[in-house]
Amino acid sequence: MSLHSSNNLTLALDVMGGDKGPLVTIPSAIMAIKQMPNLHLILCGDEHIITTELARFNISPQDLSQHQQLSIFSTSQTVEMDDKPAFALRNKKDSSMRKALDLVNDGQAQACVSAGNTGALFSMAHFVLKTLPSVERPALISSLPTHDDDKHVFMLDLGANVFCDSHVLYQFGVMGSVMAQQVDGIDNPRIALLNMGEEAIKGSDHIKQAALELSENKAINYIGFIEGSDIFSNKADVIVCDGFVGNVTLKTCEGVARLVYKKSQSIFSQNLLVKLLTTLVKPSLKKVFKSMNPDQYNGASLIGLRGIVVKSHGNANSSAFFSAIMEAVKEVERQVPEKIKHSLEQGLSSQ
Amino acid sequence: MSLHSSNNLTLALDVMGGDKGPLVTIPSAIMAIKQMPNLHLILCGDEHIITTELARFNISPQDLSQHQQLSIFSTSQTVEMDDKPAFALRNKKDSSMRKALDLVNDGQAQACVSAGNTGALFSMAHFVLKTLPSVERPALISSLPTHDDDKHVFMLDLGANVFCDSHVLYQFGVMGSVMAQQVDGIDNPRIALLNMGEEAIKGSDHIKQAALELSENKAINYIGFIEGSDIFSNKADVIVCDGFVGNVTLKTCEGVARLVYKKSQSIFSQNLLVKLLTTLVKPSLKKVFKSMNPDQYNGASLIGLRGIVVKSHGNANSSAFFSAIMEAVKEVERQVPEKIKHSLEQGLSSQ
Repeated sequence: MSLHSSNNLTLALDVMGGDKGPLVTIPSAIMAIKQMPNLHLILCGDEHIITTELARFNISPQDLSQHQQLSIFSTSQTVEMDDKPAFALRNKKDSSMRKALDLVNDGQAQACVSAGNTGALFSMAHFVLKTLPSVERPALISSLPTHDDDKHVFMLDLGANVFCDSHVLYQFGVMGSVMAQQVDGIDNPRIALLNMGEEAIKGSDHIKQAALELSENKAINYIGFIEGSDIFSNKADVIVCDGFVGNVTLKTCEGVARLVYKKSQSIFSQNLLVKLLTTLVKPSLKKVFKSMNPDQYNGASLIGLRGIVVKSHGNANSSAFFSAIMEAVKEVERQVPEKIKHSLEQGLSSQ
Repeated sequence: MSLHSSNNLTLALDVMGGDKGPLVTIPSAIMAIKQMPNLHLILCGDEHIITTELARFNISPQDLSQHQQLSIFSTSQTVEMDDKPAFALRNKKDSSMRKALDLVNDGQAQACVSAGNTGALFSMAHFVLKTLPSVERPALISSLPTHDDDKHVFMLDLGANVFCDSHVLYQFGVMGSVMAQQVDGIDNPRIALLNMGEEAIKGSDHIKQAALELSENKAINYIGFIEGSDIFSNKADVIVCDGFVGNVTLKTCEGVARLVYKKSQSIFSQNLLVKLLTTLVKPSLKKVFKSMNPDQYNGASLIGLRGIVVKSHGNANSSAFFSAIMEAVKEVERQVPEKIKHSLEQGLSSQ
């Protein structure tokens, strides 16, 4: 199914979220509706700011009242990047983030996209949309690059849960398998658990128990443990870990990429000839390092909920937020929540 | 105190350990004794193999009997890289690894250096040397590069313990502080706990409790939580985490560095001019990526035990194993175990 053939596709955008808010989200929205004539976007946020920003694209309030693809849902509050999740949940009930989620819950939108405060988005999404039946915990999932340019690896949980017991890890394996199948079109995706070593005796009891549960579900292609050094080796399509480890791992990738880039610059600048030559290589190098911060470009998804929520990076630019919108479209078209529900129920009945 | 002024310094080397065994460890030993006239090395391993290897350096068995700096401790067994720790502990009592540790325990050597099976070395070292009084768990510590070429950051635990409770994390903070002071000569080292965010509300209960314990010890300069993206930012001198997270993080660094290197190569090779220019830049690039795998070059230390044990990487080359020997020398001279014992006792009495 091509993205362009979708009918009646409606997404709710948290226009105010992210470091630059409407300056990034509105141009992304315009890009998205231009590319998909059947896409309708509900822009949740401050009406005055949104209309001002839309005017830059020659869309007047009058145009908007008859617009087939854009509408505004006016909200009076914004979740700030430093709002505590519990505070936002209690006190920001008329925020752009909350309303975007409410629209999904009410069935007026099929997915929500936000670049706002991650913790607040988790809490609100969990509270508003609730988990799917039989899902214990939602997870944050994103895809990382691998040595093979055409292949990605999904990793979850990237920080929605601090600790995950064995059954939660098992469920993440099943949910990741659905994402890899539906979103990346991989048949029989290879599922691995992130561990200290590849040997079966390594790791904590709950990881060993999760390994057992995954290997007992015949619908899952569980391939065993994987080490940190092999995350990018294209040995697995989905890597499962708890949110603490996932968060630290993802941020470490960002840190290493930044360090290597900085060290390269400093080494190159020590030699005039190399320095001159490097200016030619620099754009290519930059491209490599950028790909190491994938959630900034593709967005991450909060899965296991009764609705679709895609989180774009706080400092996403327009093309990154556009990618997050497209990710949400894909998940709607592929009916990811329904498939996750089905796969977990299948797993239960096969046990 | 200069390394060269040491008197009566004796180390026990597990000559058979590592992927290449004596082919790497013997040349490193020769380098070390040449550089330090007061260093004595006890070469633990297969006597025949050792004498054959020494002959390549024109040292005959006759020379050896009168040698001031080298002696052989003949052993009949070798711990293989795939031996299970429990198996090695039970069945390899006459191995080069075990005997090197026994020599430290008997007071015949002041430290042990091995590039052998990590799990077996942990188990044997823990069993033979025991932890220092009041130390709950030993930890594996190593230093990583930072953005500042002159500064390193110590990280522990890198894999000796799967899970660590709050008091163990607290003790790691104290032990790391001693290492940074004694080995790197840093006054009042900045100690941080690795976490999912910098805010005090983030992370698990045992991390929050460890933060409390560290901040209550006035002899420790505890600076708070640090995220994965800031490991290399020179914001902390010591980063504390449990062995699972530390192991995954360290291996992820290796994985990212390998990925970035591979991606750069592939991008560079797409353009003939860039490809030609890259050959000039390549050695510099390689240097950067090598520095991302520090335990391969500096060795890692198992601390919290009553003796000094330095672990060199399994595929260490001669210069890496030489660095591990020098690391052991430094820890002997700075009396790291005694200082750790003292610091932990001080912490106890100040509570």
